[in-house]
Order: sequence, then structure tokens, then C-alpha cells
Amino acid sequence: MDYYKQFLVKPGSKVDLSKFDATAKDLCDDRKKAEKQTDALREEIQELQYQLYAERKRSLLVCLQGRDAAGKDGTIRHVFQAMNPQGCTVTSFKVPSTVEAEHDFLWRVHKVTPRKGHVAVFNRSHYEEVLVQRVHNMVPEDVWSKRYDQINNFEQLLVANQTHILKFYLHIDPEEQLDRFKKRLESPAKNWKISHADYSERPYWDEYTKAFEDALSKCSTENAPWFIIPGNRKWFRDFVVASILVQALKSFDMKFPEPTVDMDEIRKLYHAEVKKEKNGK
Amino acid sequence: MDYYKQFLVKPGSKVDLSKFDATAKDLCDDRKKAEKQTDALREEIQELQYQLYAERKRSLLVCLQGRDAAGKDGTIRHVFQAMNPQGCTVTSFKVPSTVEAEHDFLWRVHKVTPRKGHVAVFNRSHYEEVLVQRVHNMVPEDVWSKRYDQINNFEQLLVANQTHILKFYLHIDPEEQLDRFKKRLESPAKNWKISHADYSERPYWDEYTKAFEDALSKCSTENAPWFIIPGNRKWFRDFVVASILVQALKSFDMKFPEPTVDMDEIRKLYHAEVKKEKNGK
Repeated sequence: MDYYKQFLVKPGSKVDLSKFDATAKDLCDDRKKAEKQTDALREEIQELQYQLYAERKRSLLVCLQGRDAAGKDGTIRHVFQAMNPQGCTVTSFKVPSTVEAEHDFLWRVHKVTPRKGHVAVFNRSHYEEVLVQRVHNMVPEDVWSKRYDQINNFEQLLVANQTHILKFYLHIDPEEQLDRFKKRLESPAKNWKISHADYSERPYWDEYTKAFEDALSKCSTENAPWFIIPGNRKWFRDFVVASILVQALKSFDMKFPEPTVDMDEIRKLYHAEVKKEKNGK
Repeated sequence: MDYYKQFLVKPGSKVDLSKFDATAKDLCDDRKKAEKQTDALREEIQELQYQLYAERKRSLLVCLQGRDAAGKDGTIRHVFQAMNPQGCTVTSFKVPSTVEAEHDFLWRVHKVTPRKGHVAVFNRSHYEEVLVQRVHNMVPEDVWSKRYDQINNFEQLLVANQTHILKFYLHIDPEEQLDRFKKRLESPAKNWKISHADYSERPYWDEYTKAFEDALSKCSTENAPWFIIPGNRKWFRDFVVASILVQALKSFDMKFPEPTVDMDEIRKLYHAEVKKEKNGK
């Protein structure tokens, strides 16, 4: 199956999240098989990241968005842990610091975009500024409504510098969210993750839906597409994200770079060294 | 075996690298068993890193130093890839940029020290400034000779802020280095890693040895110790680094933090939500 196409938000289309099945049982119901495939995909991700790193010609930016408990942390742990941390940086965007808040909303984001050969994963991202800030009226509408264009322009700047962008919206049901909160309540190793915000945001479910729909509709572009990932079943979510990631990385058609030195000269140096070593013994 | 003690540079001792066996066959010669143990250690590292991340009370800084082809990249790939990139950042220190060179030598290092709950791995580090800069007389002796104290003071500042520091010197023989260069020459997927520097640095082998010995002797402190790792056999190197890492992380005696909210209140909120969900259906 072409997962990239299947879950892509077609640029220019208008997203209605009520039409997206967060479970997607009909697409896949074989957990064992999917988990095995995800393992294989992780190996591929490792290989492909090594090529990206060696090639040093392009970079990859991955944005993860979703409601509380949608699985952003879990996706990072299960999919992106396959990557070598030497070429992969994860940034979690929290409430802006005083200094950050005194700049435009893309300032802190720009600083952590990936350099050539590197992968940057954003746990939440600049999209928060058209989500939480919009839902809670933290800035007036004439400010947040301009941000969609500002985001698109910013992303195209990155694209023009050989940054590939993939944006995943992890889609869950309110029932699934509540179920995950319950698990946090029950497990002592998860208690610390509970915050009041988990509950205080739930009355705004529909407002968030609207805000997500707008972000997905207005900011899915050919070179910086959004994907809507069925997030209710964690193993399927991981499988789909890993599949799209591999499909994208493969499409870059990467090659190991040519050596930057004259190989014949280096070979001569090598043989001279070997000779010296032998004589030294 | 207490690997931490075994490979620790005792604070105050004077290191003579010629007395350190880079192969250490007598310590371990069962590759299969060591690799299996390393796999288990990686699982432990994952668990312990999660606790460090959850606890958010301390951080860990790991410095990897060694000659060209000593295995810094390999150690990161084989040991630190076990970590969740969300809480682990790797910084490779290359030739300083113009701006970096216009500051003191610790400026660029300070910026990437780990925050609470995080791990920072340095691929090369501030120690380059008493290694390559000393060997090639890039700064006068009265500058580099002051740096040992400056480094110790800087590291103690981090330690005082609950940063644990582990520094690994990956120790290889000149023959092993040459052998690794050979493999880079032979493998098309490794060609790109070859640089002239690989060979131009070899005549300075002994000068580097002296510089490493001084750094190891002067800067191994109780809270920021150096370890000399037998690096000729990659699988043993990985096993030893992973062992020391686990031993250190365990000694922190970490606990999952208490929830920051009133759990009874949260439980009430949860039940109210469940009730609402049910009535809604």
C-alpha cells in the first residue's frame, strides 16, 4: 500500500476530521505482522539516515502534532529511536520562555531547524501558535490568522535550502484519550506525566478540532505535506509513520558521496605507512 | 567485574599510555558473550535514561575522545543509539567557526551542555583545545597550559548544578588505526570518511600521546573522571563503555517523581469525564 498517498492531506483540500477514522481497522488488523514490519522499517530508517548523514546534501524536518496523549512521545520512542542521535535532534516545544515570547513566533523554531545531513524532530512545533494560542485567544484573530501564510513562507524557505518536511497529525478519539489518561492514573511510573492541563483542555475538544482542520487544510503543501495518522492503535500509528518516513527517505535517491581526496594519493600514503610499520617491528 | 573502577583514571595519578593494553585480551575473550551482555546493557540504558528524563533532577555529560578512527562514531552508534533522542543530544565538535574562535574556548561548549533530565554526548570536546591546538602549536604554551585548570573549573561548575560527567578516552594502537584506514579505503560506503588529516596526523602520534596523557592526568577528577577504554576490539569497547554507563546511571539511585497535581482531584475529574462520555452515547 502507498501509505504516503493514503494518509496525505492533498494540498488545497479542505479537511473534515469527522471523516477520518482514528482506528482504521479496515486498513489493517494484523498487529503481529505490522509490528514485524515496523521492526524491518526501523532497520531501513537506520540505513537511510546513515546515507542522509554521509551525503550531507539535504536535511529532514519532522513535525509531530496531536492532542494530549495522542502519542507524540511514543512515536518518537518507537520510530525515531531507530535513528543515530548523532544526526537526529528532537526538540520539544513548551510554553515559550520570556526571551522567546519577545520575538516573532518562528524565531525559536528557526534556531533548531536541521542542518545538512541531519534530521530534526519537533515534538509540537510552530503549529502550536495556530492551535493553543488560537483556541485560548492568547493572541487576537488578526494575528493568528496571518500565521498560516507566515508558516507556509517559512517552510518554503527551508525547502529551498534542501530541507524535506513531513508533518504528522496523530489523530485520536476523545474515548481513546480518556482511556490513556486512565492508564496514567493507574500506573505509578506514569503518574508524573499527569497534569491539570490534561483535563482542562478537554472542554475545548471541538475548538481544537476546528483549529487542527484549518492548520491541516491551509498548510499542507507539496513540499511540506501534512499526514493524518490513525492514532488510536499505537502499533498501527508507529507502522504508518515509519512507512511514510521510509517512503520519503527512499524517494530522495541518496548516494554515498565521492571521496573528497585523491584516492590514489591516499593509497600511496597508506602503503608508505604500512612499510614504515613493518620496518619498525 | 567493576568496570568503572577497572578503567578509571584515578584522580591525581600520572598516566603512562604505554602501560595500557589497547586490546586487553586477558580481560575478556568471549565476543559472543560480551555482545549478548551489551544488548542487555542497552535495554538497561534505555530504562535508566527514561528515569533520568522523568526525574528531571540531574543531567549526564559524556565526552568521547580518541585519535582518528578510534571509534568515537561507532561507540555513539552502538551504545548511545539505545537512548531516546528526545532526551539525548550529540554534538560533534569540528574546527571552530569564526564566531566561535572569537570567544573563549569553552563558549561553544557551554551552550550545548545538558539540561536537567537530559544526556549530552560530545564527539570530541573542549579537550581538543589541549590536544590538536597543543600538538600543532596553534596557541602558545602559556595559553594551552592554563586550560587544564580552566577545564576543571568549568566541569566543577557543571557538577555543582547536578551534571554528572563521564569522559572516555578510546585507546587504540597505531597498527589498529592503520588497519581501520585500510577498511575505509576498501569499502565504497566508507570512502567518503577518508580525509588527508587521517595521514597527516600520524607523524604526530607521540606528541598526541603526550598531550592525551597530560589531559588524562590533570583532568580526571572524582566528579568528572576519565576512563581509558581498550579500543582495538570494537565489541569489547562497546561493552566496557555500556557497562560503565549503566554502573554510573544506577549509582544515581533515581526515582520516578511524585505527581505535581492532587491525584484525588484528578481522579474525580476523570470519573466526571467518564460519566459525561457515557451520557453522550
